This record gives sequence, C-alpha cells and structure tokens, in this order.
Amino acid sequence: MKRQNVRTLSLIVCTFTYLLVGAAVFDALESDHEMREEEKLKAEEIRIKGKYNISSEDYRQLELVILQAEPHRAGVQWRFAGSFYFAITVITTIGYGHAAPGTDAGKAFCMFYAVLGIPLTLVMFQSLGERMNTFVRYLLKRIKKCCGLRNTEVSMENMVTVGFFSCMGTLCIGAAAFSQCEEWSFFHAYYYCFITLTTIGFGDYVALQTKGALQKKPLYVAFSFMYILVGLTVIGAFLNLVVLSPGAPSTVDVSTRVIAKDTEMGLEASLIAVTTMSVHKPPPLQIGTGKDEQARPGRGWGYAVPPLQILHPSPP
Amino acid sequence: MKRQNVRTLSLIVCTFTYLLVGAAVFDALESDHEMREEEKLKAEEIRIKGKYNISSEDYRQLELVILQAEPHRAGVQWRFAGSFYFAITVITTIGYGHAAPGTDAGKAFCMFYAVLGIPLTLVMFQSLGERMNTFVRYLLKRIKKCCGLRNTEVSMENMVTVGFFSCMGTLCIGAAAFSQCEEWSFFHAYYYCFITLTTIGFGDYVALQTKGALQKKPLYVAFSFMYILVGLTVIGAFLNLVVLSPGAPSTVDVSTRVIAKDTEMGLEASLIAVTTMSVHKPPPLQIGTGKDEQARPGRGWGYAVPPLQILHPSPP
Repeated sequence: MKRQNVRTLSLIVCTFTYLLVGAAVFDALESDHEMREEEKLKAEEIRIKGKYNISSEDYRQLELVILQAEPHRAGVQWRFAGSFYFAITVITTIGYGHAAPGTDAGKAFCMFYAVLGIPLTLVMFQSLGERMNTFVRYLLKRIKKCCGLRNTEVSMENMVTVGFFSCMGTLCIGAAAFSQCEEWSFFHAYYYCFITLTTIGFGDYVALQTKGALQKKPLYVAFSFMYILVGLTVIGAFLNLVVLSPGAPSTVDVSTRVIAKDTEMGLEASLIAVTTMSVHKPPPLQIGTGKDEQARPGRGWGYAVPPLQILHPSPP
Repeated sequence: MKRQNVRTLSLIVCTFTYLLVGAAVFDALESDHEMREEEKLKAEEIRIKGKYNISSEDYRQLELVILQAEPHRAGVQWRFAGSFYFAITVITTIGYGHAAPGTDAGKAFCMFYAVLGIPLTLVMFQSLGERMNTFVRYLLKRIKKCCGLRNTEVSMENMVTVGFFSCMGTLCIGAAAFSQCEEWSFFHAYYYCFITLTTIGFGDYVALQTKGALQKKPLYVAFSFMYILVGLTVIGAFLNLVVLSPGAPSTVDVSTRVIAKDTEMGLEASLIAVTTMSVHKPPPLQIGTGKDEQARPGRGWGYAVPPLQILHPSPP
C-alpha cells in the first residue's frame, strides 16, 4: 500500500480515536451535570406553571417569545455597531451566533460576504503577523545590543519564548478586561477569549451583550473589536513561528537539491522544504511522504502558515 | 516605506473597509426586521403576562428557566452521541454552541482538547484532500482514455471544474438531506450547510436538535457526522486546487534558482515558490513582496494549503 495512503488512513484513525476519547470524557464530565440541571429546571418550570396555571399552548408560546426575544434583550443587534460586530464574527469564522440574519436576504448576503471576506481576512492576518515577527526580531536584536551581549543573534528560541508569552499575555489581558466589564469570573473570561481566538466561537459567552453595551459603551465596543482582531493577529504570528525548527539552513540546502529536479519532483521539493522546517531533525526517509502537512497546524487556530514565516531566517 | 509594510497597511485598510461595507449592508437588511420582530415579541409578552398576571420577578425567573432549558428540550446533549457531536464542533472550529460545557472541568478540558485536536484535524483533512485530488486526477485520465481522446492529460481546468461541482454538489446534497430530515426549506438547509462547512457555525440552524434525534435516529446521526467530516474534506480538497495556477513548471524553475541562494534568500525563495504558484502569471517584481500570503486563502475556509497540493503537477 502506498506510504501516503497509509499515512492518510492512520490520520483518519487517529482523528476518530481522538473524537471517541473526547466524546467519552465530555460525557463523563457533563452528563451528570446535565441531568441535575434538567431536573432543577423541570421543577422550577412546574412551580411557575402551577403558580399561574399557565396552559400548555400558552407556555409553548411563551417559550417561543422568550427564546426569540433573547437577542433583543441583549440590546439592538443590527444597528451599525452590532452589524459591524456580526461582520467580524463572519469573516473571522468565529460565528458566535449571538445574532444571526433573520431575513433570507440577510442570509444570502452573509454567504456571499463570507466567500470574499474570509480569504481577505486570512491574508491580512498573515501579512500583519509576519510584520509583527520581523519587528519583534529587530527589537530583540536592539535589546541584546543595548545589554552589551557579544552574540546579538536572535534565535528561534528567543522568538518562540516571546511569542508564547505574547499569546498567554493576550489571553490573560483579555480575561482580566472582560471579567471586569462582563462580570464574569477570570476563568470564564479566559475561556471566552480562548474560544474566541481559536475561532470556535460557541457563543455561550459573548462580549457586549449586556446593558445595551453596543449602544451605550462606545469605548468598550471599540476595545472588544480591537481585542478580537489584535488577538487573532498575535496568535497567528506565534503560530507562524512555532512550525519552524532551528534547522533552517539545512532546510534551504535540501530544498535546493530537490527543487532543482523536474516538475514531477517539484512535489517532493515542496514536501522537503516544509517537512525539514516543521519536523525537528527530520529523517531523510520522510521525503515525499506528505509530511509537509505537519508543517501546517496553523489554521487549526485559524491560520495557515505560509513559507514566508516558515523559512524566515534569523538575522545574521 | 518598505513595500511589505505598504502591502500590510493596504490589507488592513481593505479589511476595515470590507467590515464597514458589510456592517452597513447588514444594518440595512436586518435593522427593520429586528425592530418589527421586537415589537411583535413585546406585544405577545405583554399579552401573556397580562393574561396570567405574572409578576416581573417570576417572569425573569421564567426567562432563565426557558433559556437554560433550551438545549435540554432539544434532547440529551451530553450522552455519548451528543458529546461526539460536540467534540466534532470543537476540533473543526465549527462551534455551533448548541451545547456548551456547563461545568468548569468541561470548559478546561474543552480548551485542552482544542489545542491538540484542531491541528490534528487540519492535518487529517489536508492529507485526505490531497489523496482525493490524486484519485480524481487518475479517474479523469482513465475516462479520457476510455473515450479514446488523443490528449489524455488532466488539466488544472479539468480538476477545478470537477472540484467546483463537487463543492456545489456537497452543499446541495446536504441541503436536500437536511431540508428533508429537519423540515427546513431548501434555502435554509443550504445556508446551514454553508455556515457549517465554512466553520463559521452560528448555531441558528443545528442538525440533530429536534425530536431527540441524537438518541432516536442513529442512522441520521451517523449521516450528519459523516456529512460534516466529508463535506469539510471536499471543500478542503477543492481549495487545495484553486490556489494552483497553470504555471507550475515555471514555478519550480523560479524556486530552483532562488532557493539555491543562501539562507537569507531562502525567504525570497519561499515567497516566489508560492507567489508564482498562486498568482496567475505573476510579474517578477512580486518576488519577495510577501505576496506568498495570497497563496493561502485556504484556511479562511478552514484549510491551510500546503505546497504539496500547490506544487502538485498534472500527470504527464
């Protein structure tokens, strides 16, 4: 069986196993809580229904009213600020769903808007992330010079360390800010920031949904929008770094040899170019096994990792 | 000003303009509908509150009960099938939010699960997509042979056409199936499939949330899970194709020349390698301008596009 087929099959098996394990753990962690909650809610429902002797039809109607009224209670969702917020959640694929187009025209435009907007946003984040990394590299070099270090070269380790702490910092700053403004616990605010910046966007915690914040707190609105956009850039920039192993020079060397072959070999070339960069000390055997894909965990986080960053050499 | 900085700035300006335009259109399309809905809901709320003379505290309590009870009404969410469904929405970053962890342990595990699961899923989809493209290329070659065509070479145009119709087909099949099973209109089911397969995942339409489907309809559950996973693969495979311009040979040629330079130039090399592949007939001036990022609209859709597919040559 072809090596690439074996690899693909094993990846499928891994993913399904991971899903099964995840399902088992979530079941174990959440099922009992779900049951307890359901009983509590049923009891409370019966109490109120009994107290006011609400008929089943009226209660069903009341459910509809309350569920549909939820986004309205959170404030006006589709005035400019709210629509801007919604547009951000579309082109970043966060998609909280705190507000979703209610008209068919809105739904149709939303699809059209996503088709063009999502690639544009990605390209923008990529470009910004790369500029950010270049600037940090320059700063570190200057700092090392100022400290009078003999070796002022900025290593991958330096960059990754800075990147890691930037991500942690971004999540913690967000957690601190949103726990203040939304009256969430720090942990819940951290969870909100994580779920947002990974673009999962459950919508169980959504900023700007209380006290008509979208209309009444322009500064907080501006902060929230900027936080999401800057946060996605920071995490993108970090992910552009972590896929690069310290073996850059040898990488280029390997790429040279193989890309120098014909078109058919161009495939192998690209494989090595990325494989050797992404896998620390990759065995030559990996050439042409499709390992290149291991160089791209980026988007999992909402980012592709273009060779620009991957091959970016430390300044001499 | 450095060309890359200019490019990044103009990308930021473009994205913000796109957001402003989007916000204006969504405002225009949704605001009136939102107002009308709000009035209707207010009136109905007042009617029922008046009819049963429900106190404000009890109504607030009732709101809480009904809102928290929504996922429960949709069926048991955290038994194995539901947890599996949830795990899929996490590692694919769809994140409907139809169910979200209620316990802090669940939230913490969810974050840990995403950190490992999202990259794994990406790699799996990439690998599967590439295998799919190779298989389609082989099939087309055989078909051309069978039809007795003299030129049996499979062109990019052939592949992109097949890819485009595969995506449309995937969305339409999904729309047809879900409109049947969920009693949605075809348009709404299509919208659900689109929002799901772009990984936006608002959660305004979520499959398997009626009539306890998760427990009572194992076949439909299996279909839904497979549809999401296969659909993401099909769209991923297509996106691996569309970023490749017909100029593959020249691409490899360019890469060869430049990668053959020193590490510093490795950066340029990678730029060209992708630029020339992604931009149709790219002007030599683009070398080293960071245009490489234009080769990666992939993830916008939830996919990075590794050079493997980008450089994949048509079989001779």
